[in-house]
Amino acid sequence: MTGGKGQTMWGGRFAATPSDIMEEINASLDIDRRMAEEDIAGSRAHADMLAEMGIISFDDNEAIQAGLDQVLNELRDGSFPFRRELEDIHMNVEARLKEIVGEPAGRLHTARSRNDQVVTDFRLWTRRALDHSARLIGGLQGALVRRAEEHAGTIMPGFTHLQTAQPVTLGHHLLAYVEMTSRDWTRLSDCANRLNECPLGAAALAGTGFQIDRDMTAEALGFARPMANSLDAVSARDFALEALAALSIAATHLSRLAEEIVLWTSAQFAFAQLTDEWSTGSSIMPQKRNPDAAELVRAKAALITGFYSGLQGAVKALPLAYAKDLQDDKRLTFEAFDTFDLCVRAMTGMVETMTFKPDNMRAAAAKGFSTATDLADWLVRELGLPFREAHHVTGSLVAVAEGKGVDLADLTLEDMQSVHKDITKGVFDVLTVEASASSRTSYGGTSPVRVAEQVAQWKQRLGLE
Amino acid sequence: MTGGKGQTMWGGRFAATPSDIMEEINASLDIDRRMAEEDIAGSRAHADMLAEMGIISFDDNEAIQAGLDQVLNELRDGSFPFRRELEDIHMNVEARLKEIVGEPAGRLHTARSRNDQVVTDFRLWTRRALDHSARLIGGLQGALVRRAEEHAGTIMPGFTHLQTAQPVTLGHHLLAYVEMTSRDWTRLSDCANRLNECPLGAAALAGTGFQIDRDMTAEALGFARPMANSLDAVSARDFALEALAALSIAATHLSRLAEEIVLWTSAQFAFAQLTDEWSTGSSIMPQKRNPDAAELVRAKAALITGFYSGLQGAVKALPLAYAKDLQDDKRLTFEAFDTFDLCVRAMTGMVETMTFKPDNMRAAAAKGFSTATDLADWLVRELGLPFREAHHVTGSLVAVAEGKGVDLADLTLEDMQSVHKDITKGVFDVLTVEASASSRTSYGGTSPVRVAEQVAQWKQRLGLE
Amino acid sequence: MTGGKGQTMWGGRFAATPSDIMEEINASLDIDRRMAEEDIAGSRAHADMLAEMGIISFDDNEAIQAGLDQVLNELRDGSFPFRRELEDIHMNVEARLKEIVGEPAGRLHTARSRNDQVVTDFRLWTRRALDHSARLIGGLQGALVRRAEEHAGTIMPGFTHLQTAQPVTLGHHLLAYVEMTSRDWTRLSDCANRLNECPLGAAALAGTGFQIDRDMTAEALGFARPMANSLDAVSARDFALEALAALSIAATHLSRLAEEIVLWTSAQFAFAQLTDEWSTGSSIMPQKRNPDAAELVRAKAALITGFYSGLQGAVKALPLAYAKDLQDDKRLTFEAFDTFDLCVRAMTGMVETMTFKPDNMRAAAAKGFSTATDLADWLVRELGLPFREAHHVTGSLVAVAEGKGVDLADLTLEDMQSVHKDITKGVFDVLTVEASASSRTSYGGTSPVRVAEQVAQWKQRLGLE
Amino acid sequence: MTGGKGQTMWGGRFAATPSDIMEEINASLDIDRRMAEEDIAGSRAHADMLAEMGIISFDDNEAIQAGLDQVLNELRDGSFPFRRELEDIHMNVEARLKEIVGEPAGRLHTARSRNDQVVTDFRLWTRRALDHSARLIGGLQGALVRRAEEHAGTIMPGFTHLQTAQPVTLGHHLLAYVEMTSRDWTRLSDCANRLNECPLGAAALAGTGFQIDRDMTAEALGFARPMANSLDAVSARDFALEALAALSIAATHLSRLAEEIVLWTSAQFAFAQLTDEWSTGSSIMPQKRNPDAAELVRAKAALITGFYSGLQGAVKALPLAYAKDLQDDKRLTFEAFDTFDLCVRAMTGMVETMTFKPDNMRAAAAKGFSTATDLADWLVRELGLPFREAHHVTGSLVAVAEGKGVDLADLTLEDMQSVHKDITKGVFDVLTVEASASSRTSYGGTSPVRVAEQVAQWKQRLGLE
Repeated sequence: MTGGKGQTMWGGRFAATPSDIMEEINASLDIDRRMAEEDIAGSRAHADMLAEMGIISFDDNEAIQAGLDQVLNELRDGSFPFRRELEDIHMNVEARLKEIVGEPAGRLHTARSRNDQVVTDFRLWTRRALDHSARLIGGLQGALVRRAEEHAGTIMPGFTHLQTAQPVTLGHHLLAYVEMTSRDWTRLSDCANRLNECPLGAAALAGTGFQIDRDMTAEALGFARPMANSLDAVSARDFALEALAALSIAATHLSRLAEEIVLWTSAQFAFAQLTDEWSTGSSIMPQKRNPDAAELVRAKAALITGFYSGLQGAVKALPLAYAKDLQDDKRLTFEAFDTFDLCVRAMTGMVETMTFKPDNMRAAAAKGFSTATDLADWLVRELGLPFREAHHVTGSLVAVAEGKGVDLADLTLEDMQSVHKDITKGVFDVLTVEASASSRTSYGGTSPVRVAEQVAQWKQRLGLE
Repeated sequence: MTGGKGQTMWGGRFAATPSDIMEEINASLDIDRRMAEEDIAGSRAHADMLAEMGIISFDDNEAIQAGLDQVLNELRDGSFPFRRELEDIHMNVEARLKEIVGEPAGRLHTARSRNDQVVTDFRLWTRRALDHSARLIGGLQGALVRRAEEHAGTIMPGFTHLQTAQPVTLGHHLLAYVEMTSRDWTRLSDCANRLNECPLGAAALAGTGFQIDRDMTAEALGFARPMANSLDAVSARDFALEALAALSIAATHLSRLAEEIVLWTSAQFAFAQLTDEWSTGSSIMPQKRNPDAAELVRAKAALITGFYSGLQGAVKALPLAYAKDLQDDKRLTFEAFDTFDLCVRAMTGMVETMTFKPDNMRAAAAKGFSTATDLADWLVRELGLPFREAHHVTGSLVAVAEGKGVDLADLTLEDMQSVHKDITKGVFDVLTVEASASSRTSYGGTSPVRVAEQVAQWKQRLGLE
Repeated sequence: MTGGKGQTMWGGRFAATPSDIMEEINASLDIDRRMAEEDIAGSRAHADMLAEMGIISFDDNEAIQAGLDQVLNELRDGSFPFRRELEDIHMNVEARLKEIVGEPAGRLHTARSRNDQVVTDFRLWTRRALDHSARLIGGLQGALVRRAEEHAGTIMPGFTHLQTAQPVTLGHHLLAYVEMTSRDWTRLSDCANRLNECPLGAAALAGTGFQIDRDMTAEALGFARPMANSLDAVSARDFALEALAALSIAATHLSRLAEEIVLWTSAQFAFAQLTDEWSTGSSIMPQKRNPDAAELVRAKAALITGFYSGLQGAVKALPLAYAKDLQDDKRLTFEAFDTFDLCVRAMTGMVETMTFKPDNMRAAAAKGFSTATDLADWLVRELGLPFREAHHVTGSLVAVAEGKGVDLADLTLEDMQSVHKDITKGVFDVLTVEASASSRTSYGGTSPVRVAEQVAQWKQRLGLE
Repeated sequence: MTGGKGQTMWGGRFAATPSDIMEEINASLDIDRRMAEEDIAGSRAHADMLAEMGIISFDDNEAIQAGLDQVLNELRDGSFPFRRELEDIHMNVEARLKEIVGEPAGRLHTARSRNDQVVTDFRLWTRRALDHSARLIGGLQGALVRRAEEHAGTIMPGFTHLQTAQPVTLGHHLLAYVEMTSRDWTRLSDCANRLNECPLGAAALAGTGFQIDRDMTAEALGFARPMANSLDAVSARDFALEALAALSIAATHLSRLAEEIVLWTSAQFAFAQLTDEWSTGSSIMPQKRNPDAAELVRAKAALITGFYSGLQGAVKALPLAYAKDLQDDKRLTFEAFDTFDLCVRAMTGMVETMTFKPDNMRAAAAKGFSTATDLADWLVRELGLPFREAHHVTGSLVAVAEGKGVDLADLTLEDMQSVHKDITKGVFDVLTVEASASSRTSYGGTSPVRVAEQVAQWKQRLGLE
């Protein structure tokens, strides 16, 4: 176990050594070293259980636990001697343990296999990463809610097809992302709960004849229960697929907001400005204030989806139980979580610090006949027109206004009555953007009153203030 | 509203007619006609609410409900006159309603927009499709459990890397898929619950000034509650993405089982045979019994993943609120559910009817030193060797057996003792495949006893017998 | 061969009939009927060759050719009796041929298998679809070049990060897409050339013992040569993958232009307006002029990529030779070509008819210190500053202008000299957008002169006028 | 330019410093440092041209070239001081150059921008990577051809649907992969040719007013010509997409062969054995000889496809010109090439060293009525039966043989004649696997004669011996 090439731990029977390429394609240490702490936690729980069940002695367990303490310290202080020829983190830890405590290390792997060991570590890692990601989402939601509170009454154009549709409030717009990300939060949480079953004790694939207590190890590691089928335990990667899908969907929401930031900070929209901290310049155009972070968030949603797609392709059509194809699960999962982490933190920073320009927003909202629906609704409500007829009348009025080069509020009452004689001057009360936004008081509507209610609810739910 | 080209419902102001290509790329009727019943259900609930809130008269509502009755009948008996120039199912239904009941039809769209109408229909459709898919999974699980019960004690080789690893029981192997698909079931169920909020009343994007009761429509349509943000209501498609991801993962499990069926029914494995009903022949090789259905299931997991990826790409980076990019959500979602439906029903049929060949399976399990782990475990348990040392001793014994061209059970005691002198004849008790499988009684292990317990639990959970 | 259920052509030996689900999952007629003409062309060539080589009689061949004439006519006039229980188009054609000509039809399949027959048809179909797509791209290029000619001197802002960077000409911008699509054209063409090898004669997978002449059939069908390996001939689907990848990349370019059209036609940019023909309205907001076609083109690039990904996932890890997983190749390929066809035709229509708004474009180009680079270049050229120093000086001048709320051209010479004392009034000559654009005469640059040269070259290359 | 945080090269005007997260998401040095040599080559060519055109002095150019020499040496000997706060490799090289040569370094960036600089480097890198990958494919082809030569006459079962179909030769099977990979080779080559245009001189996006000679830099860097449109030059990433698609398709072929190796080395097939060098063992099952490398190759085809999909999603819908979304192009492209490199080298190693087991292959080929087609063909050829009738007769004979539990060759003449009375004993000549394989002499067929011809051609084409 001195770790020379050709002395990999499974190599007993083999005459030749793996070629360099084989070693390169097979080695996973650079990737799975991130699960070092999980590996030690799993080994601790396993050894305690083996001792409790009388499979190893309490003395051996004590030696193992002390040795793992030292390994953990070495990992944390950077002195741990990683050896690539030992392939992965699990073999590295075990080999180092053997150097430290000698023979008892050789008893640790009783009633265990790398197959259940690896996937236990991986589930622990993913569970923690999901919790971490959910917390980051919570931080973003806090930032969104605070900005929504600040702008509960700020008027901006609501778009469909990127065409001005109706006036909305900026607070309302920002809260839409709070809703989306709250579902993302629950998706991550559902995933964490669903994966929270312990594969340890499945051994290679069939369980073991040793009298182990899987409930004990499951509990020690914070799992809800042991997995009920050993073949499933070592083969299943749906938990990683689900985590990647949840990240892909959450990143899609971030990408949508990122697109909006890119639009809003363009000279054409001029709805917002990023601070220097969240902008970059150009090597040749010194005046640029580029929304690089938003653009990168926008792109990275696609990358995460590609990682999902890649992992699904690797898992698809694999017969049971473990196959080496599954090794790349970690590479893709780690990269997806790292990418998502960066995206949500960058987005939080931008949301917190972005300066909005209410005047520009309001001016944009007032253009493009954005209160046409209010006019149509007035015709229905006040004149009793069927909606479809009101719609056609409104269309004609828009055509008149377009012809005169003015907005709806600038038409005269005569203009109005030339299209429908029963229109009264009361109609002008609904044609301002403020009136329009304020009128939309249906539950979930854009009215400042509704926005304030939603903000209050979210502040309570998120524990803000 | 007579439906001639150029008289599409939004066309009031427009001088020219959409070109043919525009009509072709824009039309969705061929696809969204599948939501006809959901559309009528949504309109019924909306009209009832409008009447209840005094926004339309009870007489108008009565006319609308009666008209929708007739439309529904026409849809069901095939007499409904679909008109492609009306673009989509929603306009088709409304136009037909107007032909039937006249003016009241024009009042139905009050306080509603196509944006909230379409997504309400789509959520209703998806909710139903998720329920349907979950039920199909239940059917497959029933088939798997019954075959597992039948084969709780049937020995087969457990593979890792498609190399014989340890003997397992066929019942245990089949139950692994019950575990996987049970998580799939919960994923579909989580998705159905998460999407079960009602967007109706969000109107175009900002809510409405009419005094509507969104709780009433939400309840009438079986939703848990109205959605809390109107912009989110019309923009969000994470529910469709989540549904597709859940199907993609579930299809991955089906694809793994499909791969196994292809392997098992090959001449080389000969572990199973498909019935004529679930095989096809060859136009030139009359003796072939091809597992076409399994191969198609295997492929289709990739297609569904592609649909997920396609929808994510379409939604990514879209600013709020509605954009036409979202129209293809239905095409992809419908195709994914149809594909999944076919896959799970085909798999259920194959599982129910496949003939297993226990003799071949047992013979395969007995080859390849599949009880080497049992030998190593015996050395640990009986001689007190550290696991890693036992592992090396076993490796040496395998080398001896390989050299003599026999299996481990065929070695003599002398052979054994030549490698480790303390081995006793008791070792031979653990070297048969039956002893090996039976010994793995840890929770989740492959022992027939454990399999029978799991079968009993699953039968109860699934309500079998 | 009367086509009753259970009498499928390969069914000789089978006792039971495929279940309905099996028939549903297995049937491909709804999809592969689109290859009917290719199937007949392939059969014609095969029969001629069989007769030429003396494998069937000339009389039989004559009967077959006459029968295939009739089948083709029936297909074209809609009278062909499709029968789903015959699974696919190939069996439908052969069965119908037998009804028409009797026994000779049974000789047609000599020295052929469905495996080589299907893939021959599919290659013929794909070759034709690639040609068609390339021609459509040519049409789009023509439209782009004509609009570029018209706007060779129209100034618009060139963006990086959607921030105004430097003035460019609209003609230059449109020609960028001509360049991109010209590479798309060559990719489709390369794909068509690479796939243009004939698999016919590979039979099921191993070739045949009949003395066939594969050069003759290859030539008759317009292939460059017969494929050199029969296993490869029936297994390979890289031609379909390549076609889908080429479409995915080409659609990505269309999606980029579509995004620009959505931006340009927004009220915020107001750089362009779509005609009524290429816009749609809103059911509730009559003033909307929605760029639906552009949005759909933008989305569909993602769908095609999903189809590529789906097909790759289906083909990946398939052992040789044919597997039924490959059946979905056609479904995905047909859908990808149909989608692309719609996208490129819609884009051509929009490009041809869109109205540009040069005044708005020019005004936007003049804002945002877009001539800062010109200033920096002037400092390098006239004052001999190193570029990096000129860059810093320019940055300071931008800061001065920003502080005064004016653009660079509005600074006084004193302002200029306060930052760098050697600046002369000659600097103002380079600070207008026209001067900036005109000065960029490097090859490939945005200067109207260069654009005109490129337009002339493209007109010649595309055979315009 | 001392490189402290906050002194990034574009930072002149900015008051605050980018936050840590911003720096983290924005920094690309860890990735793009791999283009260091390309960056230096690009700068050399640019500086030479600037001097030649009189834009910088020859003295400055001399200083720059000498400085770049030193930078290159530092990079190669590992002494180059990478500084992450300078963001990317381009700024690192330029900053270091300035430290070495002072002011002339500041003149290097004249008439250039990071936009055209980066993409020039990236095209150079990708061109080299494509060449390298193509050479690796050539190496794999050599290995396949040599093994095919060795096994030109080795009989194995040809499969369709993984069911035994017809006997083929192993040489023929291996050559199928030579055909596939030869198309892969041409795809990589087409991509390298298509991308071989020089973007340098496009500057930021619009070209430059300096009198540069783009032909000179293009030629110096080995490009066929300068790119014709500066906006296209800095925006286009279709070359990277095409490279990834070509790798994805090539990896799909490797994945298919990998699947076959996994199957062949299973105990059930036992067609081949991997050497120790290309196998791994198990930590708990010492007898295992796991085809890990094949499994990893199988998986990685999915990963590369995911990278393609990710990049397409990032590029899709980006307006011109450069956007930061494009930064992840390199990360994905580098990872795809690295992955492919490993896959093809691992596959070459396995192919070169794998031991085939001809006896097992032949025995498998002889089972499953694999010569049924030969029987049917005999009936057509000798008795003049229409193919479809011969097919039915053969089906009946297979049923007789299956009933008696024997193979076709073991039927008596009486058995034969009971199904069709005209059958003569000559039929038995075609029922052995050797006769079957040898008979398939059509071009591209599996006959050893044809295989030998193909081997000879490939040896010549690949320059073997």
